[in-house]
Amino acid sequence: MQTLIWNQLSPAQQAEALTRPALDNEANVGAVVTEIITAVKTRGDDALRELSQRFERAPRQTLRVSEAEIDAACARLGDDIKAAILAAATNIRSFHAAQVQPPLRLETQPGVLCELRTQPIGRVGLYVPGGSAPLPSTVMMLAIPAAIAGCREVVLCTPSPASDEILFAARACGVKQLFAIGGAQAIAAMAYGTQSIPKVDKIFGPGNSYVTEAKGQVSRDWRGAAIDMPAGPSEVLVIADDTANAAFVASDLLSQAEHGPDSQVVLVTTSAPLAEAVKGELARQLEQLSRRDIATQALAASLTILCDNLDQACAISNAYAPEHLIVQTRSPRDLLGGLENAGSIFLGQWTPESVGDYASGTNHTLPTYGYARTCSSLGLADYQRRFTVQELSAEGIQGLGPIVQCIAQAEGLDAHKNAVTLRLNALQQKERA
Amino acid sequence: MQTLIWNQLSPAQQAEALTRPALDNEANVGAVVTEIITAVKTRGDDALRELSQRFERAPRQTLRVSEAEIDAACARLGDDIKAAILAAATNIRSFHAAQVQPPLRLETQPGVLCELRTQPIGRVGLYVPGGSAPLPSTVMMLAIPAAIAGCREVVLCTPSPASDEILFAARACGVKQLFAIGGAQAIAAMAYGTQSIPKVDKIFGPGNSYVTEAKGQVSRDWRGAAIDMPAGPSEVLVIADDTANAAFVASDLLSQAEHGPDSQVVLVTTSAPLAEAVKGELARQLEQLSRRDIATQALAASLTILCDNLDQACAISNAYAPEHLIVQTRSPRDLLGGLENAGSIFLGQWTPESVGDYASGTNHTLPTYGYARTCSSLGLADYQRRFTVQELSAEGIQGLGPIVQCIAQAEGLDAHKNAVTLRLNALQQKERA
Repeated sequence: MQTLIWNQLSPAQQAEALTRPALDNEANVGAVVTEIITAVKTRGDDALRELSQRFERAPRQTLRVSEAEIDAACARLGDDIKAAILAAATNIRSFHAAQVQPPLRLETQPGVLCELRTQPIGRVGLYVPGGSAPLPSTVMMLAIPAAIAGCREVVLCTPSPASDEILFAARACGVKQLFAIGGAQAIAAMAYGTQSIPKVDKIFGPGNSYVTEAKGQVSRDWRGAAIDMPAGPSEVLVIADDTANAAFVASDLLSQAEHGPDSQVVLVTTSAPLAEAVKGELARQLEQLSRRDIATQALAASLTILCDNLDQACAISNAYAPEHLIVQTRSPRDLLGGLENAGSIFLGQWTPESVGDYASGTNHTLPTYGYARTCSSLGLADYQRRFTVQELSAEGIQGLGPIVQCIAQAEGLDAHKNAVTLRLNALQQKERA
Repeated sequence: MQTLIWNQLSPAQQAEALTRPALDNEANVGAVVTEIITAVKTRGDDALRELSQRFERAPRQTLRVSEAEIDAACARLGDDIKAAILAAATNIRSFHAAQVQPPLRLETQPGVLCELRTQPIGRVGLYVPGGSAPLPSTVMMLAIPAAIAGCREVVLCTPSPASDEILFAARACGVKQLFAIGGAQAIAAMAYGTQSIPKVDKIFGPGNSYVTEAKGQVSRDWRGAAIDMPAGPSEVLVIADDTANAAFVASDLLSQAEHGPDSQVVLVTTSAPLAEAVKGELARQLEQLSRRDIATQALAASLTILCDNLDQACAISNAYAPEHLIVQTRSPRDLLGGLENAGSIFLGQWTPESVGDYASGTNHTLPTYGYARTCSSLGLADYQRRFTVQELSAEGIQGLGPIVQCIAQAEGLDAHKNAVTLRLNALQQKERA
């Protein structure tokens, strides 16, 4: 971990310190993905089966996971993990159900009724990575808001073999259509549809650089599908003062570091002794991790920033715009008003990042790579569309009509004006009659 | 206007009928825009001044519009249009202020507090086209929600000369930073910043194919800026039965048609006599429009669909996903439950599209080109970011910790588990002590 003393840096060096490293995808990832998408669009399931042979650990002819397979997975799974998944799902469900918005109805002037309503997005596709770890938590984070929103069709793709945990979580979250296919081909299948995999309107979920590239490509094609948010490596920033527990801080930094060698880990502290103590704890805890090599790589690129006071710490965090922001200070909630641009904030020593990753109820799908400046943490709203409704009475158009006529005239749009004039004339004739 | 009888079409023909025409941008628009963006990124204001010379009707050396210029514009403007703009602004302000959400706080289980909060996006850029008509309404639709959200910095760009109406509306909506520069170069300036134009986080507003392309390019660069929504030509679909007033329907179709030659206009009706009557009205009203040529071109590509009943009409509208949906039937509100995928819905004979375009209070920035399946109508939420906060007490981590440990173990993420274990151990030691 490199250590920087903030006040000894020039503004340019400060900006440089908080700039994410470029994402060095293999140069040909775009072309490979385009080829895969084209294959899936033109040859559908045949292409998927071929790609399954090439890329999956357990290639399949039948992509759909049957009820019998899910039954078997659920039967194999231990009671402890089942109970833990169900308990986490309950919290996630509560927090996302609380996000349901009643319709807004407002008469902006007499007889002019305006409404803002929400509707579920019709068909959604969920991508759950396989890879080095099965991620039942991702199933819950993606599928529970879809169920609460009431999306008509929910399709889930995950690399083959789908883990028992993933199949159990998917069933627990009401997902009916499960396919054991991963990678860019799964994204292409959901964006355009194949014989066995239905086309969806919007695709959610994380993935490797091929999946991310595929999501980008299909989202730029209006025949394709929308996506949840742009993606980059996962990251955490911890703000700590001299009251922080060094072991806790180190454990939180390592939770992030073990995600992948490109994980970003930043400690911002007002206390040099704390920074030293965290260093020692990192070394000690690292020894016991099974994903030690991954975490070590991530830590090599990570940063400790020593700053003067907590205001400066907040400013640094705001400039960086972290996905996860952990605050371990004397009065963590006091900082909340000054914190901007974080995906999710974890307050106080009893709130490690892993509680939000799994079970507190908040969503772990968060904007990375500085996108937290404009993007929101995933929530119910991402599975809904908002639309407006307006209804004018005769009184309404009589009151509002002249205003519309005047602006339409200023904009040189005669037909816009005429649509009002015809109605006002009709009402005038009616009154005379 | 081509007329189709829905039940005489095959499913493939039906799908074809509702497919938007390809957007035939000039082939080199992408390359031209890339060049402009590169010029602005590398040479800043110098590049903007050169591009102003090349493209603007009134080229400028000083891009910022001064307070004195705005004073003069406001002094020149007639009282009627001023009053109309202020009246419209009042309605738009009421409807968008009503969209403010209180923070959500929920204890998902004892000691586990989860919150969903909103924050304004820090810096926003608004683009207001010049071109054939000055659009003060666009200023209001973009700037009023920015002011309500509390965005720290609001930058507005519009081609030179900026019309008096636009300058008046911008001042009325609290915009402090106004620049008379248009086109792709204005988007590039706001996305990357120049000496005179501040960099923003998110860019809003409509524009021609160069502006749209520039928004696409800067939004795909993480150093650039986010954008409001993807864009296509403006469009309306009208559902009408035998009770509809043909003159009103025709006037609404023409309101859309006069926007541009690529405007999409669709009439879906259960009544052949109504369709005939609308045809006659279109011809009659068209004669009186100053933008007759534009509207005629748009109507040439437009569609009348005859269908059996209103359920079918709703299904057609849902499949098309129109930007504007006008319902002129016996009981328009009865259809609302069956309508999906529309940007904004206008109910009943006294609700022409132009009331929503200007003054009812709803936003006229709406998803086009079928994007209404997943995108929302512009609203306060687009100027805000949602983020989550969680705070656990000692009791909270004691209750939730074992669930997190169990899932972390299933996912093979030791450090995630350890972050909880360390805390549970510390609490146990404390209890013993």
